[in-house]
Amino acid sequence: MRIWLAGLALGGMALLGAPVAAQDNPASAAETDPAAMEWMRGAPPLANRLVRRDDGSFYQFPRTRWSFSNMRMLFPTANIGRGNGPQSNLPENHRGDLDAVSFVPLGGSEPMRWDEALQRSYADAILVLHRGTIVYERYFGVTGRHTPHMSFSMTKSYIGTVAAMLMAEGLLDENETVAHYIPELEDSGFGDATVRQVADMTTAIDYSEDYTDPQSEVFAYAIAGGIFARPEGFSGPDGYYNYLPTLRKEGEHGARFTYRSVNTEVLGWLIARVTGRSAVDVVAERIWSRIGAENDGYMMVDSHGTGWAAGGLNATLRDHARFGEMMRRNGNFNGIQIVPEAVVQQIHRGGSREDFAPAGYTTLPGWSYRDQWWVSHNGAFAARGVHGQTIYIDPAAEMVIVRLASHPMAANAHIDPVSLPAYQAIADHLARQGN
Amino acid sequence: MRIWLAGLALGGMALLGAPVAAQDNPASAAETDPAAMEWMRGAPPLANRLVRRDDGSFYQFPRTRWSFSNMRMLFPTANIGRGNGPQSNLPENHRGDLDAVSFVPLGGSEPMRWDEALQRSYADAILVLHRGTIVYERYFGVTGRHTPHMSFSMTKSYIGTVAAMLMAEGLLDENETVAHYIPELEDSGFGDATVRQVADMTTAIDYSEDYTDPQSEVFAYAIAGGIFARPEGFSGPDGYYNYLPTLRKEGEHGARFTYRSVNTEVLGWLIARVTGRSAVDVVAERIWSRIGAENDGYMMVDSHGTGWAAGGLNATLRDHARFGEMMRRNGNFNGIQIVPEAVVQQIHRGGSREDFAPAGYTTLPGWSYRDQWWVSHNGAFAARGVHGQTIYIDPAAEMVIVRLASHPMAANAHIDPVSLPAYQAIADHLARQGN
Repeated sequence: MRIWLAGLALGGMALLGAPVAAQDNPASAAETDPAAMEWMRGAPPLANRLVRRDDGSFYQFPRTRWSFSNMRMLFPTANIGRGNGPQSNLPENHRGDLDAVSFVPLGGSEPMRWDEALQRSYADAILVLHRGTIVYERYFGVTGRHTPHMSFSMTKSYIGTVAAMLMAEGLLDENETVAHYIPELEDSGFGDATVRQVADMTTAIDYSEDYTDPQSEVFAYAIAGGIFARPEGFSGPDGYYNYLPTLRKEGEHGARFTYRSVNTEVLGWLIARVTGRSAVDVVAERIWSRIGAENDGYMMVDSHGTGWAAGGLNATLRDHARFGEMMRRNGNFNGIQIVPEAVVQQIHRGGSREDFAPAGYTTLPGWSYRDQWWVSHNGAFAARGVHGQTIYIDPAAEMVIVRLASHPMAANAHIDPVSLPAYQAIADHLARQGN
Repeated sequence: MRIWLAGLALGGMALLGAPVAAQDNPASAAETDPAAMEWMRGAPPLANRLVRRDDGSFYQFPRTRWSFSNMRMLFPTANIGRGNGPQSNLPENHRGDLDAVSFVPLGGSEPMRWDEALQRSYADAILVLHRGTIVYERYFGVTGRHTPHMSFSMTKSYIGTVAAMLMAEGLLDENETVAHYIPELEDSGFGDATVRQVADMTTAIDYSEDYTDPQSEVFAYAIAGGIFARPEGFSGPDGYYNYLPTLRKEGEHGARFTYRSVNTEVLGWLIARVTGRSAVDVVAERIWSRIGAENDGYMMVDSHGTGWAAGGLNATLRDHARFGEMMRRNGNFNGIQIVPEAVVQQIHRGGSREDFAPAGYTTLPGWSYRDQWWVSHNGAFAARGVHGQTIYIDPAAEMVIVRLASHPMAANAHIDPVSLPAYQAIADHLARQGN
């Protein structure tokens, strides 16, 4: 078991959003094209082309380039229904000139082109909306227009948006404690944290990421959720809602931002508790069925049917774009006000930059975190998932970029130096050229 | 492990289509309404309201009344995409008079009404099409219009139809042996069986259903497919395509019909081998994306991504109705010829009644089995799944009935005495009343 756990260790940390050491010189996007590598093809697939959950290989690069587009073939999932209404319209006016847009990566000196940046970021799918029109859209590998792709921590922004809506309606009081709504967490580290602190990740929780300890919280979390298989003899809790009460406080809530995925699990639980529905169903009801989504999405669930609020959403590129465009338009999309304008503005205004700074995100100077969104305080705000997922919303540039990816390195600190200047260059280019 | 296996034994046999002893006096449909019982509701669900895969409780009545409409929350699945085209039109003209249609159950003396029959059959959803118009449609419990429901062995009829299409195209030769296409099965009992014998289940296979033996084929099959969790210490094969080569011959192929689900797994493998695609993808491409389905379907898959060809399809009531209506119209539906007319007619003409008779289905006298369909030789033919699933097609009556159910008894012999006279009574009533 130890060896198995050690093998998953870096992966486990990455999966949950913690920074990991860079993998030196990984094979390139072209070298790891998942269609060419024929993962899980054939009847049956060759033994060395299998991608499995039980041995953790689904989370090993380059198998990730297949698995991130096929999570429901490996995991139990809950559907996120689009409903029975028409798709919302996404007009198209494709512009080949974007491929040649160039920029200088952070810390670099040589210019790089946009199309090169897509390769460098191991993009599986990417789309640029300008003034609501698709001006650029590409799919790679095994990811197509109707392929729901792993969102990782972009899931948090959906959960955070729904929670913010419930706060705006008064169903959730941001100043109340977690224990007020969830007595089961009273004795945990979350008990005296406020809903607001959970939403903005300023709770202080003793959350170990010591991957030499098979009983550490990071493993217990992933195993409780069924993301990693339960090793024989493992005695940790089963299910997110059995896991969260085991966490203890360390320090004082509200003092500073610390990115811990477990906050989002609590936020999902709060949503479920005050609505009487699962957080997945609430996302379906309040977001998915209203944006005119093209496809159903789905959520990975634990053995109790609870969705992985911090990372389990899978959705198509275009449906993420609809969500992003809705946020860009202050909540109004598909002919209806889906999220109250005040909620979107509150997110866009961001959280405390002072609370955020100590977390030490070198590629995000001056940013903050609010309602599970990353806010630049320079116009843009974003949903971000490990391995390169992004919904990047720049209202000033009237632009939304969605990228789904399977980057081998599991920290956006390794991906941002190319991505963030690239997005800015596209915004500048579109502003100059019009649409 | 023995106790656990024994607990699953009856269930396992039923799941795979074998007859099991009747459960005396099970609780009624009303008493086991899965919405009222609140399975998997709450955050988290109460311990006695959990439905799990790992302990086999998903297959214990009355939990089945929830799980059969929620299989993807428990199992890995492959999507069966509806594509991006419009839904096909299903006109509606609901007729309340059907509820009062009455009939006498086989072996009974007292008349029973149609609406009572729905309760007796533990229907989760039922629909009657007359001349292509929905004249009756009901949903019960946790099953709604957009809820894919477990099909069990109705899956076989989809696989059989696709295989028959490939035979008609010459891609599969019905007179060739299985070993010709699948060398991996050369030394198995299937090696010298013909494609036709597999399609019509006249193979002779030593397939033990001795549930006192934890190493018997019936368990090995379900565990290989991941339907039942792999017990610690279990040494059987993993994946359908590792399991099938372990089966041995017993007797001579072609002599008589014997219902064995493993034939359908071989048929699915044949489809995959000659098309280079998974059987699930071929069903999506040739059927689902062409009938104007309203929802994606999904298929339960094993650890190798292989669909459970004999039983793993989950689909909505209306989409099954579209498939049935297509078959009623000799393959022409949604403005296109989806299945060649000759293939549908071959199925409708049926197989050998002489080969079928020795199997001893007392409720199906004079019937036969052809291309994974049950044929009455009295006008109607049907896809049938254990626990009461049916697509019942009566071209003479211009009628298609689809029923999704979660009957506690796992053999249609217990369900047919009510169902078959009920269907005939509806056909007679519609013929008298017109539409």
